[in-house]
Parts: sequence; structure tokens; C-alpha cells
Amino acid sequence: MIGKTIDELKVGDSASFAKTVTEADAYNYAGVSGDFNPAHINEEYAKNTKFETRIAHGMISAGFISAVLGTQLPGPGTIYLGQELKFTHPVHYGDTITATCTVEELIPEKNRVILKTTCTNQFGYVVIEGKATVLAPQK
Amino acid sequence: MIGKTIDELKVGDSASFAKTVTEADAYNYAGVSGDFNPAHINEEYAKNTKFETRIAHGMISAGFISAVLGTQLPGPGTIYLGQELKFTHPVHYGDTITATCTVEELIPEKNRVILKTTCTNQFGYVVIEGKATVLAPQK
Amino acid sequence: MIGKTIDELKVGDSASFAKTVTEADAYNYAGVSGDFNPAHINEEYAKNTKFETRIAHGMISAGFISAVLGTQLPGPGTIYLGQELKFTHPVHYGDTITATCTVEELIPEKNRVILKTTCTNQFGYVVIEGKATVLAPQK
Amino acid sequence: MIGKTIDELKVGDSASFAKTVTEADAYNYAGVSGDFNPAHINEEYAKNTKFETRIAHGMISAGFISAVLGTQLPGPGTIYLGQELKFTHPVHYGDTITATCTVEELIPEKNRVILKTTCTNQFGYVVIEGKATVLAPQK
Repeated sequence: MIGKTIDELKVGDSASFAKTVTEADAYNYAGVSGDFNPAHINEEYAKNTKFETRIAHGMISAGFISAVLGTQLPGPGTIYLGQELKFTHPVHYGDTITATCTVEELIPEKNRVILKTTCTNQFGYVVIEGKATVLAPQK
Repeated sequence: MIGKTIDELKVGDSASFAKTVTEADAYNYAGVSGDFNPAHINEEYAKNTKFETRIAHGMISAGFISAVLGTQLPGPGTIYLGQELKFTHPVHYGDTITATCTVEELIPEKNRVILKTTCTNQFGYVVIEGKATVLAPQK
Repeated sequence: MIGKTIDELKVGDSASFAKTVTEADAYNYAGVSGDFNPAHINEEYAKNTKFETRIAHGMISAGFISAVLGTQLPGPGTIYLGQELKFTHPVHYGDTITATCTVEELIPEKNRVILKTTCTNQFGYVVIEGKATVLAPQK
Repeated sequence: MIGKTIDELKVGDSASFAKTVTEADAYNYAGVSGDFNPAHINEEYAKNTKFETRIAHGMISAGFISAVLGTQLPGPGTIYLGQELKFTHPVHYGDTITATCTVEELIPEKNRVILKTTCTNQFGYVVIEGKATVLAPQK
């Protein structure tokens, strides 16, 4: 149960995880994170915002990136060093978000991997763009 | 129910949220995010890692930052534009993590606020450091 | 707090549990089981399957059988030895599933009870049929 | 996003999923299934049973089998027809359970696959043994 070591990775390698983000996800996530922003959990408040209804926490989709890194690419044994996130589009309840991680740079002397991390919705809109820095698994 | 507008904020303003991160949090978060990295959910695997036991997902503590931004500073009405995260220390089940957000820069012509975002554990170790960029709430 | 002993049971005894299976159930169950089959959690994938939308995990309805056995018939003290399951119809989010367990055979010298276990939806379709083998509670 | 078709499978193919089963899992599962058997959720009751403490629902580990079938082998597109389960050993909170599915028989004219399904704990004890019958994914 070990992911890809730095020698097994090459620039351009890519993996994805997709999930429909539901009201239940947002409510469970609110409970875990303590993020009870009314934009996520108060419909009366949210219908008067520019989104006109509750939206999902941006950090839920960000978690899908972590799911790809830790289970697929590089996979188990990966150590997460950093993540840059730009939230470019809201995620509505019921949107299907695909997180894709693509190896952009390998720094073998530091065992470090830089990946482009993008989340898109079912219409192809980018909802998160960013970059992850990880240490590759070691045997 | 509206947070602080850009005119009501000043550099140095600060707010915090703290929570003891439990095994239940990590398991619920795995379910929301799909992140079943064995480092988080498989003790037999984890005891052979350098952390010697399961650790919490870094993104759980990152969510506490979002909780501060969306409920306290600036508070409801904040729009999250971006987040930089450096994961500097593991979070073990049972650790109490305090996320603190401090206004670092105000850009009134863009209604933009830059905050320093730091998560520390109960021993004072920094587990996440980073920076958030948000749009301040508007009346 | 003890269920029925083998002397208190007779062939034909029956008990039921019913619940509307929701999207929240399926999402929580995915988190517990690790079963992120896209048929359950990815609407974009699921709409191209023959079911045309996400369906619930068959094992959720199977759990209702266990609920009947452990809380009603025979009830607390029951030891679950085995279960045969045939999944005969999909369960959609919002379907109300009734699990019914009926005593089919008593084997007193082994303290063993065989029950017919059937789950039906709100239209009367059988979604699971099968058989449970348990040890009856003992005083 | 499609699993292995019947032509891509051969007898002996095998895949696994492992997870430490926690109190949080059992409590979430109780909430989904309605199985509030005191053996799982009442410590005062459970300490007087032969297991001397609360144990996890057998059906939680059974769900790990479904996780393997639906996400790995055969993978997405699999249709679950049936499952036989023998519960051979209790699962305590904190046990790490590995579910392994191994192709035992292929019936191409019916697109049907029979798999041996075994769950073991961290000591190598078999906690569930059984057999799954599925329809393989089709392109």
C-alpha cells in the first residue's frame, strides 16, 4: 500500500476524483469545520445574497484535491506540504465537481512534486484552481 | 447578519476559532471529501509511518480558517477568493487546533482584504501557516 | 433488555422496520463503508447508467434487516451468524424501504433461528430477498 | 470511469480495502441503518455480554466488500446481484478490517462473476467469509 515514488512519476501524469456535492455534505462539513457561515446553512439569509440560495463551502471541493493526492497520485505515503487555492466560481448543492491533479514539476533532490490542481463543475467551469506541493512516497 | 465592511476593518484586527480534532471528525471528513488515505483511516498502516499512528487530514484544520472568515472576521457576506496553506506539523487525533486570522492588508478600491492565517496546536506549534484573500461584506 | 429466547419464538413470528432512504443516508454510508462507487455519489456518471440517476447502496437496506434482528426479533442478545442477500431491484433516493423478518425455522438444540428477510419499497417491489441465521438471546 | 469487463477479468484476480473501524463509524452506521442494538451503542448493557464491551455492527465490515466490488474489482458499472455472509468473529472498535475480493468463477454467457469475499482483522482472524455474485461492467 504505497503510492508512486518520485522515480515512478513523470510530468503530465494526471488523476481525478469526482463527486456530486450535496446538502448533506455541506451540513456534515459545517459540523466538522465549525464553518456555520449563513451562506451555507441558512436559506433565508442566502436567498438575499447574490447567489440566491445556499452554496457549498469552497473547502469541500478543495478536499477532493487532497483525496486525489493521498489515494491516487502520488497516493499513500504522500506528505502534503502546501496548497494554493483560488476560488473562481461558486459550488451549488447538486453540482458534480471533478478534482484533477497533474504533475507539473519534479524536484528529485528534495523528493518534491508540484502538481497543478483544478476543480471543475459539470458544465466545465473551473471552480478552484491552484497548485499542490507534496513529498512523494518513499519505499 | 452581516460581517464587517472594509471601512470597519483595520490592519491588526484578529479573530480565532479553536476545536479539539477527534477521530470522529477525521472519519466524517473522509466521508465528505473521499480522502481515504490510509494515513488517516488505517491504524495498521499508520503505525508503520513516521507519525506512528493515524493523523488528521490537514484540510480539517484549514477549514477552521474558513470558519473564522465566514462567521467572525470579516464574517457573513465575506466572499472567499483564495487561500495559501503550508502544512508545517501533523495534527494528531485529540489535538486542539486554534485558527487565527489577522488582517494584514486592506485594498479598499477592490474591497479586498488580505489576512494572515495561522493554525496552532495545544503546544503552540504552528500546524498551518498561510494567507487568505477575501472580498469584504457589503451593505 | 433481552430479546426473545428460542422458547419464546415460533415459526411465523414477524417484525418490520421501515425508513425512507435519503441522499444523506447514502452519503453518510459512503463515508462509513468507503464505497464511493460513482453510481451512488456522482450524478453526471449516474445519469448515463441504466438507472438514469444515483441509486442507494444495496447494503443500506440490508442494514435494516440487521436492525430488526438486533432490536425486535429476536432482539437484544441475538448473535448474527449469517445472511444471504439477493438484490432484486434498485433503491432510489427517497424510496421508503420496509425490512421484514419472519421466523422460518427453529433449531432448539443449537439455539439457532432461521428467518426469511425481505425488503420491499413503497410500491411493493421486493428490493432484497434473503435469509438470516442467528443464535437466539439467552437468559 | 468503467471497471473491468468480463473479458478483462480472470480467475484469481484480487483487490482489497482496509479501514480501522471506529466508534464513530458504528454510531454513524447506527444512524443510517436504525440498528440500535444495545450491543453496539450501550456500554452498560454491553459490558455484561460475552464480548464485555460494545462491538461494531457486522454489516459495517460487509460494506467494505461492496466498496471493493464497486470501486476496484470489477469496479464502476458493476451490478450487485447477491451476497452470502458468515459472521465468524466479532469486530471491536479499533480493529482494522481488510476486505478482500477474489474472482472465483466467470460465467461469460450471463456476464456474471462470482467472487470469494473475506474480511480479516489485524490479527489475521477471519471476521466475515462469503461470496458475492455480480454482473460485470459493460462498455
